[in-house]
Amino acid sequence: MIDLHYVATGNNLKIAIMLEETGLEYRLVRYEMFRGDHLTPEFRRINPNCKLPAIVDRAPADGGDPFAVFESGAILTYLAEKSGRFIPEDPRGRSLCQQWLAWQIAGLGPMHGQAHHFIRYAPEGQHYAVARYRSEAERLLHVMEYRLAGADYLAGEYSIADMACFPWLGGLSLIGLTLDALPHLAAWHDRIAARPAVQAARQAIMDENRALYARAKAELTPEQWSAMFGDRMHRASRTL
Amino acid sequence: MIDLHYVATGNNLKIAIMLEETGLEYRLVRYEMFRGDHLTPEFRRINPNCKLPAIVDRAPADGGDPFAVFESGAILTYLAEKSGRFIPEDPRGRSLCQQWLAWQIAGLGPMHGQAHHFIRYAPEGQHYAVARYRSEAERLLHVMEYRLAGADYLAGEYSIADMACFPWLGGLSLIGLTLDALPHLAAWHDRIAARPAVQAARQAIMDENRALYARAKAELTPEQWSAMFGDRMHRASRTL
Repeated sequence: MIDLHYVATGNNLKIAIMLEETGLEYRLVRYEMFRGDHLTPEFRRINPNCKLPAIVDRAPADGGDPFAVFESGAILTYLAEKSGRFIPEDPRGRSLCQQWLAWQIAGLGPMHGQAHHFIRYAPEGQHYAVARYRSEAERLLHVMEYRLAGADYLAGEYSIADMACFPWLGGLSLIGLTLDALPHLAAWHDRIAARPAVQAARQAIMDENRALYARAKAELTPEQWSAMFGDRMHRASRTL
Repeated sequence: MIDLHYVATGNNLKIAIMLEETGLEYRLVRYEMFRGDHLTPEFRRINPNCKLPAIVDRAPADGGDPFAVFESGAILTYLAEKSGRFIPEDPRGRSLCQQWLAWQIAGLGPMHGQAHHFIRYAPEGQHYAVARYRSEAERLLHVMEYRLAGADYLAGEYSIADMACFPWLGGLSLIGLTLDALPHLAAWHDRIAARPAVQAARQAIMDENRALYARAKAELTPEQWSAMFGDRMHRASRTL
């Protein structure tokens, strides 16, 4: 049994997709980040970085105590190694999968994340930052298009690299981007969206937050801001 | 023989450290990003994302054609698997190493990178962005301090996770941060800085750029800006 500690965002959807694809037994543990559920000493023992998603594997392969894993990229790798699935077996395919997974967590994720922050959360007037992140977010879509013009999936076959990238295409309209000029990327997106496991994962964790994601501009109270980006988040990370 | 395509920055130093630590035979291929050396069709076949570092392994384990690897995190993993070193063998240590490596490439690297951008490269007046990234950069140092209060190295033993994080502590003063209140992190830094392989790697690729990194504010010509952040970089990424 795997506990998935989650909020309804793209980084969390990655893990739900992998759990549905592998059929590993899992249980959902829902957090309300706006309320600061992630800022407890208990959760910090699961993720020292105080962020979601994280998992706790209650039946790790070595038969020992429950094992916690944080960082969505590392969780995907852990589940691929546990299940023996969704990472290519041949060494070149395996490395390609690791490369595109790294590219997603180091590039596509953080840069699209910054675009969402400045367009949807930050105070008005951040023109330089909005332009910087929107253009970098768009550039990264072209990098995927370039790869997918020559392959059906990022590592050749469907893998955790695709599962990592897919959720980030769900909110493009919120940052003023589309797939209109990116036919290979759009076709890849539709292939993945059609998978039953992907639909089940979306339904399991994303539907509840549809209203939030439908709002172009998020409106947080000072307390919500503090738990997400401000003092409460920073104080929780300073405690030894 | 491994070709390391590089510029003198922290993400590139990670790879030079690993090559020195393992003793794998390598050759340096130097790029001048301000001049746009990374924006050629030849380099894009090595890294579709047009960024450094990248490697080409001219003697891959399968005996086939040279194999290119991009993304610093994936390169470290590739070299660890090739050499069988610097990733723990026990499953829990192995996952811990993957978790902290993912944390570095998805968090510490991008967020410190944004702090450097807004403090050292962006036009004046970005007060919100400067405060956002400096405080997040500092928060992430506290996350490392929390881990290193309980372990000598991030994965328990010295690993690619440490090699990934170490270079990012080299430029803290440029973004107004110090290790003064972080004794475990400072001790970890000194342990790694004392390693002969780390000193050799620094000498191999970082010394040449010491003058650039000594400047608090980078001053780029419009052409240099275009190759690093602007039109030339974006155009190179749009070509199929």
